[in-house]
Amino acid sequence: MQSRSELAVIVGAGSGLSASLARKCAAAQMRVALAARNIGKLQPLAQETGASVHACDAADAAQVEALFGALEAPDLVIYNPSYRIRGPFLGLDREEVRKTLMVSAYGGFLVAQAALKHMMERGRGALFFTGASASVKGYAESAPFAMGKFALRGLAQSLARELAPKNIHVAHFVIDGGIERAGGDPRAASRGDDGMLKPDAIADTYIAVYRQHRSAWSFEVDLRPWVEKF
Amino acid sequence: MQSRSELAVIVGAGSGLSASLARKCAAAQMRVALAARNIGKLQPLAQETGASVHACDAADAAQVEALFGALEAPDLVIYNPSYRIRGPFLGLDREEVRKTLMVSAYGGFLVAQAALKHMMERGRGALFFTGASASVKGYAESAPFAMGKFALRGLAQSLARELAPKNIHVAHFVIDGGIERAGGDPRAASRGDDGMLKPDAIADTYIAVYRQHRSAWSFEVDLRPWVEKF
Amino acid sequence: MQSRSELAVIVGAGSGLSASLARKCAAAQMRVALAARNIGKLQPLAQETGASVHACDAADAAQVEALFGALEAPDLVIYNPSYRIRGPFLGLDREEVRKTLMVSAYGGFLVAQAALKHMMERGRGALFFTGASASVKGYAESAPFAMGKFALRGLAQSLARELAPKNIHVAHFVIDGGIERAGGDPRAASRGDDGMLKPDAIADTYIAVYRQHRSAWSFEVDLRPWVEKF
Amino acid sequence: MQSRSELAVIVGAGSGLSASLARKCAAAQMRVALAARNIGKLQPLAQETGASVHACDAADAAQVEALFGALEAPDLVIYNPSYRIRGPFLGLDREEVRKTLMVSAYGGFLVAQAALKHMMERGRGALFFTGASASVKGYAESAPFAMGKFALRGLAQSLARELAPKNIHVAHFVIDGGIERAGGDPRAASRGDDGMLKPDAIADTYIAVYRQHRSAWSFEVDLRPWVEKF
Repeated sequence: MQSRSELAVIVGAGSGLSASLARKCAAAQMRVALAARNIGKLQPLAQETGASVHACDAADAAQVEALFGALEAPDLVIYNPSYRIRGPFLGLDREEVRKTLMVSAYGGFLVAQAALKHMMERGRGALFFTGASASVKGYAESAPFAMGKFALRGLAQSLARELAPKNIHVAHFVIDGGIERAGGDPRAASRGDDGMLKPDAIADTYIAVYRQHRSAWSFEVDLRPWVEKF
Repeated sequence: MQSRSELAVIVGAGSGLSASLARKCAAAQMRVALAARNIGKLQPLAQETGASVHACDAADAAQVEALFGALEAPDLVIYNPSYRIRGPFLGLDREEVRKTLMVSAYGGFLVAQAALKHMMERGRGALFFTGASASVKGYAESAPFAMGKFALRGLAQSLARELAPKNIHVAHFVIDGGIERAGGDPRAASRGDDGMLKPDAIADTYIAVYRQHRSAWSFEVDLRPWVEKF
Repeated sequence: MQSRSELAVIVGAGSGLSASLARKCAAAQMRVALAARNIGKLQPLAQETGASVHACDAADAAQVEALFGALEAPDLVIYNPSYRIRGPFLGLDREEVRKTLMVSAYGGFLVAQAALKHMMERGRGALFFTGASASVKGYAESAPFAMGKFALRGLAQSLARELAPKNIHVAHFVIDGGIERAGGDPRAASRGDDGMLKPDAIADTYIAVYRQHRSAWSFEVDLRPWVEKF
Repeated sequence: MQSRSELAVIVGAGSGLSASLARKCAAAQMRVALAARNIGKLQPLAQETGASVHACDAADAAQVEALFGALEAPDLVIYNPSYRIRGPFLGLDREEVRKTLMVSAYGGFLVAQAALKHMMERGRGALFFTGASASVKGYAESAPFAMGKFALRGLAQSLARELAPKNIHVAHFVIDGGIERAGGDPRAASRGDDGMLKPDAIADTYIAVYRQHRSAWSFEVDLRPWVEKF
């Protein structure tokens, strides 16, 4: 008599994309858990979606372990955190580069490992990673972000090969373009109609991929605005 | 007074994937046109989906022109035809290699050009191409199929870059694995549950991509069974 | 008492790259055969390099067969021909698109098959294909060239996987940028020093790859000017 | 009065590949500096090649800074260190995963930054990174190595785009297969003649890429034994 609904855990919950994902998951009758380093502003979203809220630095092993220890077995875990530092290579601060790797990639490893303990036991689950154009192309003056996002994609690929045959759906999304911020993004005007990615539109594709039948799973999906150069 | 429903044109309509696409499009309240070189067996599907049926060799320019001349402006055109010859490279028949290129790639060009005349006038549309693992990896003893499928992907990429800013959604699907045939596919048994791609599952993703908001369009989506090596 | 020197066959011999390849091969003590559709201007190069000259349309099976029938077993065959038509997609001439595929890709198949008959008998050889940035990225308003060059790369990949274990080295070169023409290229000035690929510099890398020990063969090598965006 | 010879710095100097690189550089009349975490066994190589020897943990910022502070401006810097941990994902030790990222990728950043200070001043130089098949494909049960090697490739791509126009040649080598160890590698026998990469053969290609004219620089070169599946 399994009446519980599915549980979606969104890590890096402070972003606009995470908010849309939370709403779409809730609309799809899923329970939602929001995890973020800074949970100060998550209360309205939590109320709107009925989500639980969890303070968690994704790059901190103990905090990640505590997060998943406090949760039931998740059906879907989405890893969104990223950190970036840009600029001419010689001027990059070493500690910031290390942090970029830790947040963008090592945190993905920690969350995957903690989440999979639950999923492997139940023999099913989905683990989604949010990438960027920097996941597949290393841009000038953006080496640290390329390092972090390439590494996260390497993690996702390896996990997909290892875990798909164990009935766990691993997917990686290449978000190619700027995501429009809520409440009127000043950058949007110069790009014309729908010139930035709308978080709701991205979230629709995540949900569609989550609903895929396992006979036809996607590993990698790119998403960009119609006017984006690529 | 816009009462007409959307029109989906499925080229290469003889395959099981095309049948699923026709059914999913019809279920989504779209009108469907089926085009195939050999239309002898399409009648039951046409009746089930209310589709029109059109004889058309996609590699023949005149026939492709006639096909789209006979149709209203399509909203979605899906190019599925492919042809392949396999075997040790030295034994490949030249004429068969040429045919592989013509059907798998040149026909895609012809269909795209004819379909886009309509779409460019209306300022919208979607053009989807069905690829394979051979689209991104050239396998031994399968050079002709690699040539055809690589070429089709080159066409699709070029069209996406040229046409997305004109509000036409071009997408390419990398089908990685065997598609299960209707009526009990003897190959399926050895692969375990859901070990081959179910055409309905593939079609669900095509429809989801077709429904994407233009602020977050996918160009390339891979699809494979959970147990498929890649 | 095997005193014969190696034989290099350069197909598409009318280009500046081919001229450099001929000179570098001759300088490396190889005999050279030059094949081109139009051999009218090849005489000076032939004299300089001691090369034989052969009229051959690489997209014509009979001519390709005749070419390799007239030659001894080649050690190295380089496929350089390409043809391109550019412009907005709707205005592309179908016949020109077909020709682009035939010259850029199908001719590569014909040459590979004819050359490999010799190589397979002797159990060694090298087969090099010249690609372009269009081999890996389909640009807007350049769909036909993308189709041809993607297809050639698919052919090369498939051949590499099939033939490397038979001791035949297949390689594909991604030439990313404009090749400087002999005698003062007017385009070069605006690009600054060494802003276009010098054919001699490209040829040096082809020769280096040809000289690779088979324990460490390259399949794909990109080449671009230091100032080229990519 | 430019009598000094070029200086090559090889980081991660304990490997067989590094030994071959040192010998090939010395044979090309370059001065060589060998840097390794553990320099205990480097004396014979240093004597043979006239190299200086430097203890340096490449993942330690202070040690990397001290290394390049002690050296003259290098012409060529090669980053070879890597570290890996393998095994089923759930059993991976977190600290080892972190170390894999630090040695395989972060150390590459530290070395690049320190080396480039010199190179940017002189307005020339070359910076080469040694990758693996894991740089472009994430294998099952090898997530940490994929993370590290993907990240290193992202770093290299970003640097190539940023630094090539500043006359600094950045290249990334994808070593696809096992490198034969000196003194009779027991794994080699089962692979047949030349079935593992010979370090001297790899080094030949590094030197050839280093000698490339800047009008035709390679960024990425793959290398694999003729019998290697890929």
